[in-house]
Amino acid sequence: MSNIIVQKFGGTSLGTEERIASVAKIVKEASQSANVIVVVSAMSGETNRLIKLAKSFGDDPSKREFDALISTGEKVSAALLAMALHQIDVKAKSYTASQISMKTTNSYSKARILEVDGKKIQDALDEGIVPIITGFQGITESGDVTTLGRGGSDTTAVAIAAQMKAERCDIYTDVDGIYTTDPRVVPEAKKLDTITMEEMLEMAGQGAKVIQIRAVEFANKYKVPVRVLSSFEPGDGTLISLEEKDMENGLVSGIAFQKDQMKYTLHGVSDTPGIAYAILGPLSDANIEVDVIVQNVSVNGKTDFTFTVSKEDEISTTTVIKKLKDSLNFDDLLIDSNIAKVSLVGVGMRSHAGIASKAFKALSENEVNILMISTSEIKITIVIEDSSVETAVKALHNSFELDK
Amino acid sequence: MSNIIVQKFGGTSLGTEERIASVAKIVKEASQSANVIVVVSAMSGETNRLIKLAKSFGDDPSKREFDALISTGEKVSAALLAMALHQIDVKAKSYTASQISMKTTNSYSKARILEVDGKKIQDALDEGIVPIITGFQGITESGDVTTLGRGGSDTTAVAIAAQMKAERCDIYTDVDGIYTTDPRVVPEAKKLDTITMEEMLEMAGQGAKVIQIRAVEFANKYKVPVRVLSSFEPGDGTLISLEEKDMENGLVSGIAFQKDQMKYTLHGVSDTPGIAYAILGPLSDANIEVDVIVQNVSVNGKTDFTFTVSKEDEISTTTVIKKLKDSLNFDDLLIDSNIAKVSLVGVGMRSHAGIASKAFKALSENEVNILMISTSEIKITIVIEDSSVETAVKALHNSFELDK
Repeated sequence: MSNIIVQKFGGTSLGTEERIASVAKIVKEASQSANVIVVVSAMSGETNRLIKLAKSFGDDPSKREFDALISTGEKVSAALLAMALHQIDVKAKSYTASQISMKTTNSYSKARILEVDGKKIQDALDEGIVPIITGFQGITESGDVTTLGRGGSDTTAVAIAAQMKAERCDIYTDVDGIYTTDPRVVPEAKKLDTITMEEMLEMAGQGAKVIQIRAVEFANKYKVPVRVLSSFEPGDGTLISLEEKDMENGLVSGIAFQKDQMKYTLHGVSDTPGIAYAILGPLSDANIEVDVIVQNVSVNGKTDFTFTVSKEDEISTTTVIKKLKDSLNFDDLLIDSNIAKVSLVGVGMRSHAGIASKAFKALSENEVNILMISTSEIKITIVIEDSSVETAVKALHNSFELDK
Repeated sequence: MSNIIVQKFGGTSLGTEERIASVAKIVKEASQSANVIVVVSAMSGETNRLIKLAKSFGDDPSKREFDALISTGEKVSAALLAMALHQIDVKAKSYTASQISMKTTNSYSKARILEVDGKKIQDALDEGIVPIITGFQGITESGDVTTLGRGGSDTTAVAIAAQMKAERCDIYTDVDGIYTTDPRVVPEAKKLDTITMEEMLEMAGQGAKVIQIRAVEFANKYKVPVRVLSSFEPGDGTLISLEEKDMENGLVSGIAFQKDQMKYTLHGVSDTPGIAYAILGPLSDANIEVDVIVQNVSVNGKTDFTFTVSKEDEISTTTVIKKLKDSLNFDDLLIDSNIAKVSLVGVGMRSHAGIASKAFKALSENEVNILMISTSEIKITIVIEDSSVETAVKALHNSFELDK
């Protein structure tokens, strides 16, 4: 029994004592045919409870202390799951990031994993113990606690799967797989049995919410097969496959969308070489992820530069951009905080023209106003008003016959 | 400013966001004239919440996991207090036991401190940072988290004060000092300005509850002056002095009492050499603190061996003693779970006879039935029925005129 499976359980899967007991049963069953390593998130609600406590000491608490605070949630759920496993006669031990030397960058709240020491984990497996590892967190070189950002437990799981050369990483959540789009918006949405890494990368980045984008990147880089499945009901979930999908499988695999986006337009900025870097560099330095970027054609040496960010980065983005006002000498800063993104994703798009026009036609017929467009090889992203999201997703799902 | 003060704040002092903000003000004020090191307990209620979670996975969860679980409470309060200090412009950083290498024995839930690495703490002080250290916990040589038992944060504070050669260790709590007895039982109880270490040792051991006995032992050993005071109201508290108190100061300093005790009697045990060790050795190995011990005069080579333990050790004590049944060959095991202890404490007792008889007279006049008696140089402990505690304490307080 040398095959290793990593199982990651999210917050809703561990939301109550009863849920933790159910998860223990899933782990027990898997441990009968594989060496199981478990990665856990905090019990649902716990991270928000801790964030609320932090916010009572100002809107911008020290990131070092914030990470030290919110990383306690996973420590709680890891210890509880170990106890639940003991209760059903499975040997298990909880491990913190510090205990397995999960080293990260110093970038608090958005740290990136640098290395994992697999020795303690392997020692546990060798002794027939299920190691339960706190997701979402790491430590810096000097031993300070860091966190990986929301959803970071997925990344922890995939990183450990890569380090331990696991056969597969199973991401347990409260949905039973990846759908063509959100079934709460489009009831006809269909579960996909497989999805390619590339498609998943685009889906996750665009808010499929089932798995974190960085986790998929990691999985892609280290060739770890990842499966997304439900801890609430049986089923095989959706396998994020390493192989290219059959091209005949359809042009568009799914539709992702994301609300709570913001659009910043620097109006009348000088169109000189390096201007994009002058804007995006400081944002990147501040750990702000810029998403869609559009630069208009230059008129009289001036241009409009527009980008979107997640609403949670509103304060820091506005601060950074206002500091750039003097050096960039733009005319106006326009901020639109009520926008959303809708994306068509599919490896089949590559070789087919006409996807974009078909999408724009569907949106136009449903009177959805398009604010921005950005395309890649396997994705078309359309920025629209927040209020039009449901209409847009339904129209596109229907137009590309994803329910068939 | 090279003088160091350690300030320890208990759970009620940190019970809410508002209380944490008040504590931050106390720390700020102290930090203006001394190098302050802070040690924190978990927010009140938090440890019980975590214990309740653990209990849903059986009555006897793995001690390793139990410690990993409940040690998260202090991590939360340490980070929050750091944030509260930042808010009022005090530089501060939280440190976990692991981060300052607070090494302990492997005895989960009742670990003892072995050593503390003062370097990280000193580095923080040198940078003008207030280090906030998680109380109650440590790590083993192999990096597992341990806890020191209830009230262990006091021990952490004194250990750090000793290591850092602090001028004083201030234990902030919800009472304004040490009283002649519990004011809730005897309203005339008086606050003591000073109490000797020896008296305090006896008081704490007998349930004065204000400070943990091991902390006083540590303070005694390393000659750290300790002050007990309130974080809720101003005042100088009670100083636990290193010097002998003036003998004229009274014969009895205070009356301590402790409910929730249990009495075990091994009836008809063979009175052979080593019998006490044969009984107490296994209890000590199981980390059970045996308190009052009485062995009766031997009759026909058989004797009765009686001891008391805290009710929280009931399950483990009964288990240990039942295992001894065969080897010790006693006739009966009698367990009385409704007893309490009342102790008269005072260094002045040493040179004065008649204290005991005066005490017994007062109890007799108030119809308190005495079950066991145990005396030391500066203490007389009387085991009585649980229901008589209040009557007994009032009678003794009055008889020794402690309200004067």
